Amino acid sequence: MSDVPKSHPRYLSLTLRDTIVAGVEKGITSIHGLIAHGRGEAYDYLIGEKTQPFAKTAIRAAAVMLCLAEHPIISVNGNVAALVPQDIIELGQILKAPLEVNIFHTESGREQKIQQHLQNHGASDVLMPTTEGQLSYIDSNRKFVHPEGIFKADVVFVPLEDGDRCEALRKMGKDVVTVDLNPMSRTAKHASVTIIDNVVRALPLLCHEIKTLSENATTQKTLAHYSNEAVLKEALQHISRGANG
Amino acid sequence: MSDVPKSHPRYLSLTLRDTIVAGVEKGITSIHGLIAHGRGEAYDYLIGEKTQPFAKTAIRAAAVMLCLAEHPIISVNGNVAALVPQDIIELGQILKAPLEVNIFHTESGREQKIQQHLQNHGASDVLMPTTEGQLSYIDSNRKFVHPEGIFKADVVFVPLEDGDRCEALRKMGKDVVTVDLNPMSRTAKHASVTIIDNVVRALPLLCHEIKTLSENATTQKTLAHYSNEAVLKEALQHISRGANG
Repeated sequence: MSDVPKSHPRYLSLTLRDTIVAGVEKGITSIHGLIAHGRGEAYDYLIGEKTQPFAKTAIRAAAVMLCLAEHPIISVNGNVAALVPQDIIELGQILKAPLEVNIFHTESGREQKIQQHLQNHGASDVLMPTTEGQLSYIDSNRKFVHPEGIFKADVVFVPLEDGDRCEALRKMGKDVVTVDLNPMSRTAKHASVTIIDNVVRALPLLCHEIKTLSENATTQKTLAHYSNEAVLKEALQHISRGANG
Repeated sequence: MSDVPKSHPRYLSLTLRDTIVAGVEKGITSIHGLIAHGRGEAYDYLIGEKTQPFAKTAIRAAAVMLCLAEHPIISVNGNVAALVPQDIIELGQILKAPLEVNIFHTESGREQKIQQHLQNHGASDVLMPTTEGQLSYIDSNRKFVHPEGIFKADVVFVPLEDGDRCEALRKMGKDVVTVDLNPMSRTAKHASVTIIDNVVRALPLLCHEIKTLSENATTQKTLAHYSNEAVLKEALQHISRGANG
């Protein structure tokens, strides 16, 4: 698939790239999504390619928020489908929340290919965009949603989100839980809970956290004490220390 | 070409993305190159999307080093060809240095397409990789070079370089001038002169600097006073200050 020699010092990172490039070849990832992946790589490098304490704090808050939701929904784009199909399906199963395909660049048939890809990996309930459900405050294709999914949801889990839509969802009174490697992005700033981590590392941890929570009592206390602003500040300080290092 | 609405707050950056995506559609840019572009975007955001003083210092040193070279060569990959074909050709004309195609991912025919693309933009002298010229210390396809180009050169200008090859060129005793947005990359650290800037902004400034130099006397003094390490340190401090808000 790739001609990266094993002796290359960035072999592992380059192999992960191959996964996302394979997503493009399958028609589920947008080629613009590759650029977004590259931006993520840069920020991941800056945070040390490890799940940091500020991410763990956000994962705990995310777990509680998703468990307390009446109508949680999981929004899936082409990068998430390519990188973590198994984990995103598991998350839906644990939360009893449907997955919904929602993408920015709508090359013909890509939405259907993502749906099919998720079903091939064992997903049963994959909602699709409709013209019956439309988000306010948004121009792009991402406004088209499912009436029983994102439109109705009180909490939207949407990793690797577009800043536009995050703002629109918040303005409509929904809580947004996101995974984003850039603590300065509009998505990071506007979400209710922002997990600053690589989605490949964060999703298994989030699933584990939710499973542990449901054994104990779900507590609102974690949310009351959670400050997304403080988490983003810690992430920025971490990057700053690393860059100065 | 794209469905990005003009109301999108990152419209300009997304438009530049379209240029590189168009490079893929023309067969000159690797889809892996899109990921590299994305990483560049992230670092450009961190340095403020402007040519900073540390870049201007490096541009001055680069201009002198290239003017003093006996056999300067300009190495071109698929991202450079897509983003700045005119500027890279102008640089070659000013320096009377040939362009040489050298790429990491060698999808069939891509090298020829880059050559053709540069010739379509007015380049006269575009050297191609050969098996007669091979770089030491390197496994990938990038080791194949032209005997009269990179192989023979004393100074290699290679924007958006791969860390591997930069090290190999330096070990072979050549000076390397690069443009790289990541001050922590192996390329940035190993090059003789590293311009931490977006290639779209840096190349016209470099051409201008060289034209101004050749009117005055070319001076070795600039090089004697230049410290690439100091420039990288300044770039990191700049990023660190930005991240600390």
